[in-house]
Amino acid sequence: MTSIDLNADLGEGFGHWRLTDDEQLLTVVTSANVACGFHAGDPATMRRVCELAAARGVRIGAQVSYRDLAGFGRRAMDVPPAELAAEVAYQIGALEVFARAAGSRVSYVKPHGALYNRVVHDEEQAAAVVEGVLLADDSLPVLGLPGSRLLELAGKAGLPTVTEAFADRAYTEEGTLVLRGRDGAVLTDPEAVVARSVDLARLGTVTAHSGARIAVRARSLCLHGDTPGAVELAHRVRQRLEASGVRVEAFV
Amino acid sequence: MTSIDLNADLGEGFGHWRLTDDEQLLTVVTSANVACGFHAGDPATMRRVCELAAARGVRIGAQVSYRDLAGFGRRAMDVPPAELAAEVAYQIGALEVFARAAGSRVSYVKPHGALYNRVVHDEEQAAAVVEGVLLADDSLPVLGLPGSRLLELAGKAGLPTVTEAFADRAYTEEGTLVLRGRDGAVLTDPEAVVARSVDLARLGTVTAHSGARIAVRARSLCLHGDTPGAVELAHRVRQRLEASGVRVEAFV
Amino acid sequence: MTSIDLNADLGEGFGHWRLTDDEQLLTVVTSANVACGFHAGDPATMRRVCELAAARGVRIGAQVSYRDLAGFGRRAMDVPPAELAAEVAYQIGALEVFARAAGSRVSYVKPHGALYNRVVHDEEQAAAVVEGVLLADDSLPVLGLPGSRLLELAGKAGLPTVTEAFADRAYTEEGTLVLRGRDGAVLTDPEAVVARSVDLARLGTVTAHSGARIAVRARSLCLHGDTPGAVELAHRVRQRLEASGVRVEAFV
Amino acid sequence: MTSIDLNADLGEGFGHWRLTDDEQLLTVVTSANVACGFHAGDPATMRRVCELAAARGVRIGAQVSYRDLAGFGRRAMDVPPAELAAEVAYQIGALEVFARAAGSRVSYVKPHGALYNRVVHDEEQAAAVVEGVLLADDSLPVLGLPGSRLLELAGKAGLPTVTEAFADRAYTEEGTLVLRGRDGAVLTDPEAVVARSVDLARLGTVTAHSGARIAVRARSLCLHGDTPGAVELAHRVRQRLEASGVRVEAFV
Repeated sequence: MTSIDLNADLGEGFGHWRLTDDEQLLTVVTSANVACGFHAGDPATMRRVCELAAARGVRIGAQVSYRDLAGFGRRAMDVPPAELAAEVAYQIGALEVFARAAGSRVSYVKPHGALYNRVVHDEEQAAAVVEGVLLADDSLPVLGLPGSRLLELAGKAGLPTVTEAFADRAYTEEGTLVLRGRDGAVLTDPEAVVARSVDLARLGTVTAHSGARIAVRARSLCLHGDTPGAVELAHRVRQRLEASGVRVEAFV
Repeated sequence: MTSIDLNADLGEGFGHWRLTDDEQLLTVVTSANVACGFHAGDPATMRRVCELAAARGVRIGAQVSYRDLAGFGRRAMDVPPAELAAEVAYQIGALEVFARAAGSRVSYVKPHGALYNRVVHDEEQAAAVVEGVLLADDSLPVLGLPGSRLLELAGKAGLPTVTEAFADRAYTEEGTLVLRGRDGAVLTDPEAVVARSVDLARLGTVTAHSGARIAVRARSLCLHGDTPGAVELAHRVRQRLEASGVRVEAFV
Repeated sequence: MTSIDLNADLGEGFGHWRLTDDEQLLTVVTSANVACGFHAGDPATMRRVCELAAARGVRIGAQVSYRDLAGFGRRAMDVPPAELAAEVAYQIGALEVFARAAGSRVSYVKPHGALYNRVVHDEEQAAAVVEGVLLADDSLPVLGLPGSRLLELAGKAGLPTVTEAFADRAYTEEGTLVLRGRDGAVLTDPEAVVARSVDLARLGTVTAHSGARIAVRARSLCLHGDTPGAVELAHRVRQRLEASGVRVEAFV
Repeated sequence: MTSIDLNADLGEGFGHWRLTDDEQLLTVVTSANVACGFHAGDPATMRRVCELAAARGVRIGAQVSYRDLAGFGRRAMDVPPAELAAEVAYQIGALEVFARAAGSRVSYVKPHGALYNRVVHDEEQAAAVVEGVLLADDSLPVLGLPGSRLLELAGKAGLPTVTEAFADRAYTEEGTLVLRGRDGAVLTDPEAVVARSVDLARLGTVTAHSGARIAVRARSLCLHGDTPGAVELAHRVRQRLEASGVRVEAFV
């Protein structure tokens, strides 16, 4: 039986500000990418999300980011590797306290926003993220884009790697994401997103922007939780997956 | 044979700014209060200080603070207890990564600056700090002022407590510190500081501001590292202690 | 004919986070308290709010705060007066750029959150806020609570002062606000808030918590914009004021 | 008679941290690039530096930066143009308050660190900086590298432009700076720096890295104040310039 993990970004408020509907998303996903304070995520929110996730049996991951509250981690930064590695480790360690206090632990690492995109191609920063993960825990899985430098270097360093796909993003024929801002980069038709989710999980394929059918192997699907209707769409994706015979469960 | 621990604040730079001479101080102290990023201490500095401390066999402590880079943690803040507890745990967790990566671990917690002073008397914030420590590790010693609410509540919660004294600060007859800013609050004569250190370690007594001799029981002496001549004075204190038959070693 | 000013906090998002419905609130109020970056309010948001306010003829005020993004400026801080004065001036100056670029100017100053409450009684911080305003512009009106130290010291310093009242907050018989957190401190019945608004504007009176009728003289009413239904309630307040023969207009 | 302006970065501490010897540098330079809080420069420091500069008749400039305290503004960031323009204007406005309170005014703008380097070539960010300056004051001179996109776009927008040269940096034959980190990029021989200063001011030429003599037209020389011996070297540069018949004075 085919199985797939569902991950989403959680705890992306800061202090008085809220963004993600953490309680609702935790009823859908099997892996929670918890913001660690650098692009979002104050300590009290981190604690609360970890408690909710642990209570529901949802796996906790460290969503590490550039230090950029003002830009929500979406502005690429030329951070020197030694600083970046230490910043990544710092965030993982801070989250680990709350995961453990809730009876769970940090089970994987996923870069956020501009850092996520940067380490697809940037050798130096990808290596720095890997170094940061190793500093924290040399058995910690890294979640990222198939074919990215990050996963390649993580694998070489002996870290488990987990690939993910996006049901609501357009793909090029090469299997990379069409950049945000381009026409059609983000799919907004709920039914299309649901159907692509099932194809990605069951067949490991997706229809590229060009219309061609391409292979996209992923052990996890990333759901977005910060847009109107996102939680409802996430529920539909999960229901359709299960109705299609796909087991929704955290990656091992 | 009498023994005493020597602690000092380390890693109190941030990014491009430096404050403490970490390398030199680590040749003197037995316990390093490492800044954790809230009043000072960027991740790369935390990593470096942990590596240096571990290499020298110096114990690593988490110097937790209010979130206040602009005020160096010296401005008291009315932080709600749930936020404060989470902020304390966050800082401990972040430091723990670097301590462990260096082959050591976070061995105690000491509040910094305005938080240190606040939890001498403030029941609510003292309880929040204790809660934060418990979230991180329920066997972690807490370093603080004898008679403080912090140590009282930490002890009640089952945490080991460690008392400290200040050889360069004037004491009231009640054994509390004369507030900074008052005349004579800080002793600047090196010989006086050295002599008081020996008395504190050997006799557990100090001459109060009034001239009276009072008892101050402390397992650790706090040395300051951020003033001109501080490192040299710290060396003199340690030498005189050892010459007086006091063993300088970390508290158990 | 009686007239009253309506003020509300605007631009209280930060980066990716939004809080206040600025467009809607600007159709109701005559004075906009614009966040200046210390508790909320990134520069791009400040610019946008100033442009919207100027286009609608709404007066722009600097909502100055403690430097506390993580606590939304709601945590009292013991900021030394010289630092606080400079921080206040800094915020006013930053906002002035956007007000002027939009063809308007900063027309008053109102402290936010914990600073607002602190300067009701705290002589030192009230004086520091006044010093900060004077640094920026020695003819700038200060908006605050009647009887507060802030307005008293501002008046002594030659600054125009403007009093405000809160239609949705309970008052003591002495005319101070019942602290948040106490039973009945915040009125939630829309009709009660509307009726009190009219009484405050027309009669300068309000029914205190005890049931006694007391005098509260205010040239401005503060409306809240960050709760569900807040914008609708603000519209009702304005409509009822106008239907009751009160002219809604900015204070001179 | 030939004249030259001398500029240096000032006020680059933050809170408890100090970096530049502002008092000493203000006895040498004719233009002070004052940090505005984004890479360094808390409000109280900004106020103090403006008072010192005004008292000495030194011109005050806004040294605007990416929002990056942790990286001292030395990490390039992909800030969207609208955000960058607003951030630049915000910093200028904040400094203007202290300049005016001291009886002076902000007389020019100079980008700092990574932003300075980025706008040499990056059209989008250069345009955003220009937009930010225009928001604040459409007659404000912009100080930068000859041939940079920044000066080109500033000039097109009608802003006065001022070119600067670096006596302690190696130049390519094309007149650009040899990147930091390359061999010989920074000159450390004081006598060489002094001699190059005189050549730059009197002849408008400098010996490039290759040994070729090239033209570098600059109305201002940038002196560095954050290295050991920097202040003494700055004094020597100024003395030699004056002894060589060069008048040291602020650009008009």
